[in-house]
Amino acid sequence: MDYLGLNDLIKRALEEDVGYGDITTRSLVPPEQRARGVFVAKSPGILAGIKVSQSVFAYLEPEISFESFKNDGDELEPGDVIAVVRGRAVNLLTGERLALNFMQRLSGIASKTRNLADMIKYNKAELLDTRKTTPGLRVLEKYAVGIGGARNHRFGLFDGVIIKDNHIKTVGSIQKAVCTVRQKVPHTIKIEVEVTTMEQLQEALESHADIIMLDNMDVAQMTEAVNIVNGRAILEASGGINESNLIEVAKTGVDFISMGALTHAAASLDISFNIVDAD
Amino acid sequence: MDYLGLNDLIKRALEEDVGYGDITTRSLVPPEQRARGVFVAKSPGILAGIKVSQSVFAYLEPEISFESFKNDGDELEPGDVIAVVRGRAVNLLTGERLALNFMQRLSGIASKTRNLADMIKYNKAELLDTRKTTPGLRVLEKYAVGIGGARNHRFGLFDGVIIKDNHIKTVGSIQKAVCTVRQKVPHTIKIEVEVTTMEQLQEALESHADIIMLDNMDVAQMTEAVNIVNGRAILEASGGINESNLIEVAKTGVDFISMGALTHAAASLDISFNIVDAD
Amino acid sequence: MDYLGLNDLIKRALEEDVGYGDITTRSLVPPEQRARGVFVAKSPGILAGIKVSQSVFAYLEPEISFESFKNDGDELEPGDVIAVVRGRAVNLLTGERLALNFMQRLSGIASKTRNLADMIKYNKAELLDTRKTTPGLRVLEKYAVGIGGARNHRFGLFDGVIIKDNHIKTVGSIQKAVCTVRQKVPHTIKIEVEVTTMEQLQEALESHADIIMLDNMDVAQMTEAVNIVNGRAILEASGGINESNLIEVAKTGVDFISMGALTHAAASLDISFNIVDAD
Amino acid sequence: MDYLGLNDLIKRALEEDVGYGDITTRSLVPPEQRARGVFVAKSPGILAGIKVSQSVFAYLEPEISFESFKNDGDELEPGDVIAVVRGRAVNLLTGERLALNFMQRLSGIASKTRNLADMIKYNKAELLDTRKTTPGLRVLEKYAVGIGGARNHRFGLFDGVIIKDNHIKTVGSIQKAVCTVRQKVPHTIKIEVEVTTMEQLQEALESHADIIMLDNMDVAQMTEAVNIVNGRAILEASGGINESNLIEVAKTGVDFISMGALTHAAASLDISFNIVDAD
Amino acid sequence: MDYLGLNDLIKRALEEDVGYGDITTRSLVPPEQRARGVFVAKSPGILAGIKVSQSVFAYLEPEISFESFKNDGDELEPGDVIAVVRGRAVNLLTGERLALNFMQRLSGIASKTRNLADMIKYNKAELLDTRKTTPGLRVLEKYAVGIGGARNHRFGLFDGVIIKDNHIKTVGSIQKAVCTVRQKVPHTIKIEVEVTTMEQLQEALESHADIIMLDNMDVAQMTEAVNIVNGRAILEASGGINESNLIEVAKTGVDFISMGALTHAAASLDISFNIVDAD
Amino acid sequence: MDYLGLNDLIKRALEEDVGYGDITTRSLVPPEQRARGVFVAKSPGILAGIKVSQSVFAYLEPEISFESFKNDGDELEPGDVIAVVRGRAVNLLTGERLALNFMQRLSGIASKTRNLADMIKYNKAELLDTRKTTPGLRVLEKYAVGIGGARNHRFGLFDGVIIKDNHIKTVGSIQKAVCTVRQKVPHTIKIEVEVTTMEQLQEALESHADIIMLDNMDVAQMTEAVNIVNGRAILEASGGINESNLIEVAKTGVDFISMGALTHAAASLDISFNIVDAD
Repeated sequence: MDYLGLNDLIKRALEEDVGYGDITTRSLVPPEQRARGVFVAKSPGILAGIKVSQSVFAYLEPEISFESFKNDGDELEPGDVIAVVRGRAVNLLTGERLALNFMQRLSGIASKTRNLADMIKYNKAELLDTRKTTPGLRVLEKYAVGIGGARNHRFGLFDGVIIKDNHIKTVGSIQKAVCTVRQKVPHTIKIEVEVTTMEQLQEALESHADIIMLDNMDVAQMTEAVNIVNGRAILEASGGINESNLIEVAKTGVDFISMGALTHAAASLDISFNIVDAD
Repeated sequence: MDYLGLNDLIKRALEEDVGYGDITTRSLVPPEQRARGVFVAKSPGILAGIKVSQSVFAYLEPEISFESFKNDGDELEPGDVIAVVRGRAVNLLTGERLALNFMQRLSGIASKTRNLADMIKYNKAELLDTRKTTPGLRVLEKYAVGIGGARNHRFGLFDGVIIKDNHIKTVGSIQKAVCTVRQKVPHTIKIEVEVTTMEQLQEALESHADIIMLDNMDVAQMTEAVNIVNGRAILEASGGINESNLIEVAKTGVDFISMGALTHAAASLDISFNIVDAD
Repeated sequence: MDYLGLNDLIKRALEEDVGYGDITTRSLVPPEQRARGVFVAKSPGILAGIKVSQSVFAYLEPEISFESFKNDGDELEPGDVIAVVRGRAVNLLTGERLALNFMQRLSGIASKTRNLADMIKYNKAELLDTRKTTPGLRVLEKYAVGIGGARNHRFGLFDGVIIKDNHIKTVGSIQKAVCTVRQKVPHTIKIEVEVTTMEQLQEALESHADIIMLDNMDVAQMTEAVNIVNGRAILEASGGINESNLIEVAKTGVDFISMGALTHAAASLDISFNIVDAD
Repeated sequence: MDYLGLNDLIKRALEEDVGYGDITTRSLVPPEQRARGVFVAKSPGILAGIKVSQSVFAYLEPEISFESFKNDGDELEPGDVIAVVRGRAVNLLTGERLALNFMQRLSGIASKTRNLADMIKYNKAELLDTRKTTPGLRVLEKYAVGIGGARNHRFGLFDGVIIKDNHIKTVGSIQKAVCTVRQKVPHTIKIEVEVTTMEQLQEALESHADIIMLDNMDVAQMTEAVNIVNGRAILEASGGINESNLIEVAKTGVDFISMGALTHAAASLDISFNIVDAD
Repeated sequence: MDYLGLNDLIKRALEEDVGYGDITTRSLVPPEQRARGVFVAKSPGILAGIKVSQSVFAYLEPEISFESFKNDGDELEPGDVIAVVRGRAVNLLTGERLALNFMQRLSGIASKTRNLADMIKYNKAELLDTRKTTPGLRVLEKYAVGIGGARNHRFGLFDGVIIKDNHIKTVGSIQKAVCTVRQKVPHTIKIEVEVTTMEQLQEALESHADIIMLDNMDVAQMTEAVNIVNGRAILEASGGINESNLIEVAKTGVDFISMGALTHAAASLDISFNIVDAD
Repeated sequence: MDYLGLNDLIKRALEEDVGYGDITTRSLVPPEQRARGVFVAKSPGILAGIKVSQSVFAYLEPEISFESFKNDGDELEPGDVIAVVRGRAVNLLTGERLALNFMQRLSGIASKTRNLADMIKYNKAELLDTRKTTPGLRVLEKYAVGIGGARNHRFGLFDGVIIKDNHIKTVGSIQKAVCTVRQKVPHTIKIEVEVTTMEQLQEALESHADIIMLDNMDVAQMTEAVNIVNGRAILEASGGINESNLIEVAKTGVDFISMGALTHAAASLDISFNIVDAD
């Protein structure tokens, strides 16, 4: 987590939740009172985001103590103690919900990713995420995907090229599109082309596309595509892939499999934060 | 959607996705070329967030045309046309992913909420959301909950009081906690107390708490609580409630039922955006 | 002062005053030179905002020493030493005006509030502030009102409901307005209705409004209202209340009295900051 | 009002007041309903800030109609119609308080300034404001001072030089301080020196200070200073000047008189905003 | 120029120059007075940034008229009219310096780039920029490089990989570094390795690096490298390249030549803005 | 460098360069690994901006060690060690380019300024900068000019008055323009008038302008102007001044000479940053 924007994100999220003040805690808890809080796993999964949660408390109280017993990527069993926080009671009470909201969501993504990645761990194919992330949280969600054991696809529209159907229509042919893009984008970036038919695949190959995305193909088509390409381009399967056909897709021999569900369909992992007697 | 911060949110989310520029589109599509894009439902559900998606395109191109055929709250069937966007092709291509990310997530929340709210629609109990929302998106997610047919609980720590176990320990008794808070917070805010036992319930009642949250009680306990309270306070059931026990909980006679899953466990609804021949 | 936005506010205010640099001090004072500055009361009043002033200096020089001899809420007599600051001379010279501007304004509000609150301290009625605060300073000004001994009304339009004449006209009746609002806002928020006549008062009562604001009524009307309501709703007097009729209003038996003058007509308290020989 | 930061200021102030939404108005008023609102003076004074109030409504609804019947600087009598706003009822209801808070505070400053400026309008001396303004509102408050008929002193620490006692102590002598500053600051800026005695005045004169501030001198001393200086420097009286001695000070023959009270002790002017039947 | 951050950049730059107001213009020019201003080239070169300058005026006055007679990339001769602006005189006077500062700097970069690019236009080698840009202006400066006829290298540290000597030392060998990076970064990004010797070149080749940067090699070494590599990797020459050896370097047969001087050593192009009689 | 906005500037510049992360370094360098980096001069010049570069590293790692061997204003010879940085290797690698970009540009300006200032160091005339600075970097660039030995002109449009031809046309005469401005701007600011002919010079003198800018005059005209003015106003030469005529201009006896080239035509100074074996 070397993310320059993390503090800004935490600030905005705290302002969203706390607004002009935590009126309950402010009314009841003396500012100097200290407390101890414990993060405990309540269901099995993979931890992600512990540094983000730590940063939430550090934002509220720079000298807070945050002792972690698990690291990002570790497997959690119900009852596992994840971390212990010691500091001013008001800050524990004010920060706990946001710290949990981050940790639970990111761990949910890491857990779902791990499950899926493990299904194909003996295959060549690697699992990829997509741009179907929560607006504003892409850095964190892609980080959680990595923790879960999958690979990150391009971050956004600025650091990778995917020529889609609409782009192709605009210029007239895959050949022309690949050629045009290659002359304009930095020479450090590979050119990916999305294809839906074998004819397009052939054209993409002839255009020397670096990566070819097989979009919404069935397993038979993908197998054929792998044979045709025969190592001359990187192949990425995409669209309509889920838990029940993932292994089959991996067996076709594609290099990568991208799944939006890693980020847009992962439920939060159940984790609790209990404040115990004073520190 | 009268949300003052919407444009800032869209700006940040676009910057996240587009960064210094959409290098594929910029390389291939002439700036003046126009296109038409269509949002189409791909699975059944409830629409939410159409204005947010419209605002994404309007941010990129103020004079873009956005014609909607469905409104927030409408039921969607696969194949339903939701909206048609007409504008510069570059802006349709650059904005589509973010527009979808918002619309799919919010519709996912609205759809899940509608399902659950419908289960108890003939009961007195109303469904409530919680603060278990995605950091940075609380306004939008609570809006989607409302579209789905549930009620919003307090927005954050600043506009409602919930006295929890940790607060009670601090001051010594429910009685004292309620009394202290009532003297300090604006007189416009009701005092809610979280209780886990019948003894605490009794104490909360005697303290004239306005709302009592029955935390993690089973159905038998909730029924008893309803009988004891007998209208002297508003009762809110919370914790451990899911699709399978929701109806039973509603039948106990509580006034409100809060469920974090409305926001933290809703998968995105499947919606596509297809760019068709020029406008 | 647990206000998350305080540092942003101080930053903006320093940038307003200091701009691209304090050209006098920069030209004359060696950066390493140290000094000692003393805040001294020059007229009697109530101190408020000492932490804000401390934060101004801490913003400029995190390790500055700020020793306070008075706390917010303390009575000040001319000549009282409020605090002593020790740090780099350039920072004392650059920060003093802003530190004073905050402390003087907030102490002015606290002093005016204390005077008025003391006038009715043996009455049931509590004094309330309003939304007539300085744009951008509401958190601080409401804090100063609290220090002065009055109670805060709702913070803004988002955390409390007041149904005013214009709202009533829109929906047709108080009854309908109260009923509509109650179904839409969080169940944690009380419903307040503004009334100007006894007929409206009666209707508000029948609508089970939680709080009724008696707007611009004279003392006789308020007395009648108190009798009519007889504890069935909270009563708040508002409009046209000033130092000369405050006690009379309090004697009518209303529960709360709101006065905009607490914040919009309070002059700054006279406080000086003297830099003395080096530290 | 050509102030680049105005929209940011309005945005922050609206967010402060409206937060995540005006829950009363949103619940009751249909978004499409239109209304008409009228600003009416309730006490006599000088108008200032009408463009700021207009910008508040324009921020909420760019195409709102704002028709003004008075301009900044005009005298107001109770009952005078200042402006009429026509637009969506929700925006009138949501924006009115902030529009009033700006207009009332700025008009309060302009009114107080006009009163004082008029007292010395047949004298050579001009009235000046100071840096004793509300943090965050300096541009607006100094604008209101100008509308009231006084002159603006330096805006902040960056656009003017005042060598004060503490600066002098640092370098050893007025002579050396003036000389040092003159070599370092832009040649476009005059050098002002604060003096409290006739000896310092003499030294400032000999240092060729452009402006000499007579700090906390009595009328006799000021008169003597005027005679000594005899036009060789601009003279500014400052400190301890109020309504009762202002004329006397002006009669001493000083060129400028600065008074912090113009901004830090001006009460808001009473102005109302009434929403009348639909537009 | 589809740069999302352009308006923020212009806003900050205007605030830097204009601050609380253009005191000269405000004092002298009536707000309603209109004028016409003309951008005229004063030395030969290549135009870049005309849209940026237009956006400066549009920021101050959205409905301003900006008519351009030259486009980015056009050759300018002294006396050429570049554009004519018609609007309020105050906005022309306030915005002219910033509009010029942008247009002159960007045109300076485009002009220098065009000169150098033209020197090697019959060679295979393409000219590249670097990350040696002005902090805060990278998007604009890289845009100007493109206008001048060179190619953009990676935008920053996030969208391209260059393994430098220090990275290699860390992991022990080029082989290991390339292999590690390839497993971690998105599969859409090519791996570039910086080498200074023929041994390193050999190792980079064997590691299947996509791009090899020949750092600070002389022409003989580069020629040898081209022969060794023989098309198995993209070759980029870097370091110590200037106007006098550029052609020789291009003749070695490398694919790309990167030069920091395109952005860090380009003087502004001389362009004037004359305000002529009213419009 | 007491510049309040420095951290914001560094943050924006780091975000520009680093974006969502330094993908090369993150992939290869263990977070805990430490390193030592050395800034070394590669060509002769004057150092400026060392504190800015230090702040870049401190932004990334607050407890980093930055030991400087040269100060701003020192002469550099090739091979001179400027500073040594010790900290986490990832932060040295991520921050080095930005630290260099600042230090090289500012040192380039200081070096060019020193060269020119030295040419006229035995003349009365002082060298001045202009507003022809890089948008967003004015504070830093004017600081570097000061380090180089020249004087800063007004910072922007808000802290100094220059009445130009266009202003004069608007009001009709220099006399009227000077008189109008003097009544409106703070009395702390001198009035500068730009003249191009002897007639205008005469009129400016009679208007008691404080400063007269001789715009684009030749040496003979300037000499005549100096004789005419004879000390009754400050004289500033501007326009068309360069290395080859600077001494002649200085010899005319003008008080100041302003040159835009100090900031808009200075190439970056060559400085390297080498990371050496671990700390």
